[in-house]
Amino acid sequence: MASAVSPLAPTSLPQMPAIEGVRLATAAAGIRYAGHTDVMLALLEPGTTVAGVFTRSRCPSAPVEWCRDRIKAGRARALVVNSGNANAFTGKNGRVATRLTADLAAKAVHCKPGEVFLASTGVIGEPLDAGKFAGVMAGLAQTAQGEGWLDAARAMMTTDTFPKLASATARLGKTSVTINGIAKGAGMIAPDMATMLAFVFTDAPVAAPVLQALLKEGVVDTFNAVTVDGDTSTSDTLMVFASGAAARRGAPCIGRRSDPRLKGFRAAFVQVLANLAEQVARDGEGARKLVEVVVEGAVSKPSARRIALSIANSPLVKTAIAGEDANWGRVVMAVGKAGEPADRDRLSIWFGGIRVAHHGERDPAYDEAEVSAVMNRSRARARPRAHLRPHQGVCRHQRRLSILGSRMAFHWCRP
Amino acid sequence: MASAVSPLAPTSLPQMPAIEGVRLATAAAGIRYAGHTDVMLALLEPGTTVAGVFTRSRCPSAPVEWCRDRIKAGRARALVVNSGNANAFTGKNGRVATRLTADLAAKAVHCKPGEVFLASTGVIGEPLDAGKFAGVMAGLAQTAQGEGWLDAARAMMTTDTFPKLASATARLGKTSVTINGIAKGAGMIAPDMATMLAFVFTDAPVAAPVLQALLKEGVVDTFNAVTVDGDTSTSDTLMVFASGAAARRGAPCIGRRSDPRLKGFRAAFVQVLANLAEQVARDGEGARKLVEVVVEGAVSKPSARRIALSIANSPLVKTAIAGEDANWGRVVMAVGKAGEPADRDRLSIWFGGIRVAHHGERDPAYDEAEVSAVMNRSRARARPRAHLRPHQGVCRHQRRLSILGSRMAFHWCRP
Repeated sequence: MASAVSPLAPTSLPQMPAIEGVRLATAAAGIRYAGHTDVMLALLEPGTTVAGVFTRSRCPSAPVEWCRDRIKAGRARALVVNSGNANAFTGKNGRVATRLTADLAAKAVHCKPGEVFLASTGVIGEPLDAGKFAGVMAGLAQTAQGEGWLDAARAMMTTDTFPKLASATARLGKTSVTINGIAKGAGMIAPDMATMLAFVFTDAPVAAPVLQALLKEGVVDTFNAVTVDGDTSTSDTLMVFASGAAARRGAPCIGRRSDPRLKGFRAAFVQVLANLAEQVARDGEGARKLVEVVVEGAVSKPSARRIALSIANSPLVKTAIAGEDANWGRVVMAVGKAGEPADRDRLSIWFGGIRVAHHGERDPAYDEAEVSAVMNRSRARARPRAHLRPHQGVCRHQRRLSILGSRMAFHWCRP
Repeated sequence: MASAVSPLAPTSLPQMPAIEGVRLATAAAGIRYAGHTDVMLALLEPGTTVAGVFTRSRCPSAPVEWCRDRIKAGRARALVVNSGNANAFTGKNGRVATRLTADLAAKAVHCKPGEVFLASTGVIGEPLDAGKFAGVMAGLAQTAQGEGWLDAARAMMTTDTFPKLASATARLGKTSVTINGIAKGAGMIAPDMATMLAFVFTDAPVAAPVLQALLKEGVVDTFNAVTVDGDTSTSDTLMVFASGAAARRGAPCIGRRSDPRLKGFRAAFVQVLANLAEQVARDGEGARKLVEVVVEGAVSKPSARRIALSIANSPLVKTAIAGEDANWGRVVMAVGKAGEPADRDRLSIWFGGIRVAHHGERDPAYDEAEVSAVMNRSRARARPRAHLRPHQGVCRHQRRLSILGSRMAFHWCRP
């Protein structure tokens, strides 16, 4: 927590308006360090719906199992998040700790334990002393208020170097609704899922199954399209809570995912997810570069995505970029390694805006010095072809099928 | 080539006897550097059979495509290997270069171009000037002799810090036969295939389909069970050549893979493959540790192998071992990430001989200092449970099914 802020950190924090039906509070429970704010409570008004996606690890943390078992009911009244201890690989003790935490929160919030959702981040394998929450839970429930997003984001930081927040508004019918999100990342950030912890809140009245569908389609090109170290956490959790409070201001209640009134909300929701996911990548442990990989002309979008991931996760591609070495042969290697249909003799590769290979051979105009200059940038300014984000590595696989794109920001760490 | 010899290098070179029917020669063709020995010719007597396995890259090098197209005929008279240029991602020029090389060799050796096998290693994307072979090919064919294994192994080194050789003998019927192998590795060493270039020669009379079957089963726990950087080369090639000359000394000709007389030969063959594969791992670029991962009690051997690979290829596990940090939570992460059936609450983990986690929780007797002492070793002396090789990371997945083991040596690089 003492490390310098990532050079890729955003230069300013977003404005985070209050969201009706959502109140926040933080406290120092002494989970790992005394006097360090390490627990966050989100209080959700009755009727709040919830959806979530979780790590695909076969060794998930106890809180992940707790949430997964309860998310289908679709109702939430509270979220408790702690840092300092992941409550992962803690066996029976881990389950006892989640139960105790939920009981304490349910008592303070006056709801059922099954309406309490949990997340923990920090050390793996260390027993979590959930009894420590007893001393702070009532106070958290009493002091919770509509502001405090920054404090909430900070309470769940571990090796993060900056708090991650994003906000957007949308129209639902004729009513303005708000979407706020907070996240923490740092290590073990790999699809799928691709975050440690992220929570999104809205006042839009959206039924739980619709929320789940929006989330599932929303993560594909956001949280599941970033990678830092290629490893997958035991604790990855992304949940979205909809208080529905905007219904009191006339927002329509959305019960079908095909409802055309969702259009603006869906776009704003994905924007918040994309914003948070990129912040997670920007704060990868030791990250010094942010790279976007673009694969075009693959046989399908999933195929393009697998090729992009093969490039983004290749240790040799990462070390080449970290070393600012224009070794495009490693991109060829990574394309070949992906196992996807790839016509080598029609492959072209760009670094930044510079084409280094064309139709399966080194570009005749290849100039190593020119390419090296692009590699030196930590955030490339080159933005060819109207790509929205800075990128350094571009791989276009040109087969004359339809042009299917897959964008992927990735990071790497200098170990 | 100027880098210091790997600290994991074998302390002595093996004796390499001549193999009847196989003659070797090397030369400096000036492929990349003038005056550097960079080409090797193996001359094989008429009747030599051949088998091979190659990279699964979808962007293979031109020589890989050349060999793959001709290996099914099963006949070989010559092998030409060059270092300095991989002839990969060289488009049409690459195909022209392989054809020219084979024509030159066929002329010198008096055989058909289709009986010439080729391999190239070095830079990707640089056109290979195969015309340079014209000046040396006749001399190579004239000077080829039964000794010279060390020179042959050296001729194909790139960033290798030591030449890789292995030899074994076996009985075929009542006749002694010899198996010699040479290899080069260094980077992009990942299953499947798990080498850059390796060539095995024997005087045993074995039909090509039998040779292919032996090779396919032989690589599973040898070349396909080592990993250095997790990346896959465009050029991975492992070929085996059987001159059959031992038939003149009474060795039986083996035409069926189920022939019981193959037993000793099969064991010696796998021993040579395992020896070469481990040397490749020991010479991974920048390697400072050799680690063997043992997974027991998985639901099947392929499942155990996938779990072992997930651990071995995890960047976070690698950095923990490189940093000599007893962070066993990362092993839990890697087991979970593998996606294989893994009962978290029955998982136990050993580092060296020390159990760090038991039945899904930190071992009650866990002592970080004790485990750190094991992590400090570059070659662990701990050899519990009669494992044959030094190892530092041991993961036993204890489900009370049958005990199925998968051994895997892996390396990592400090970038």
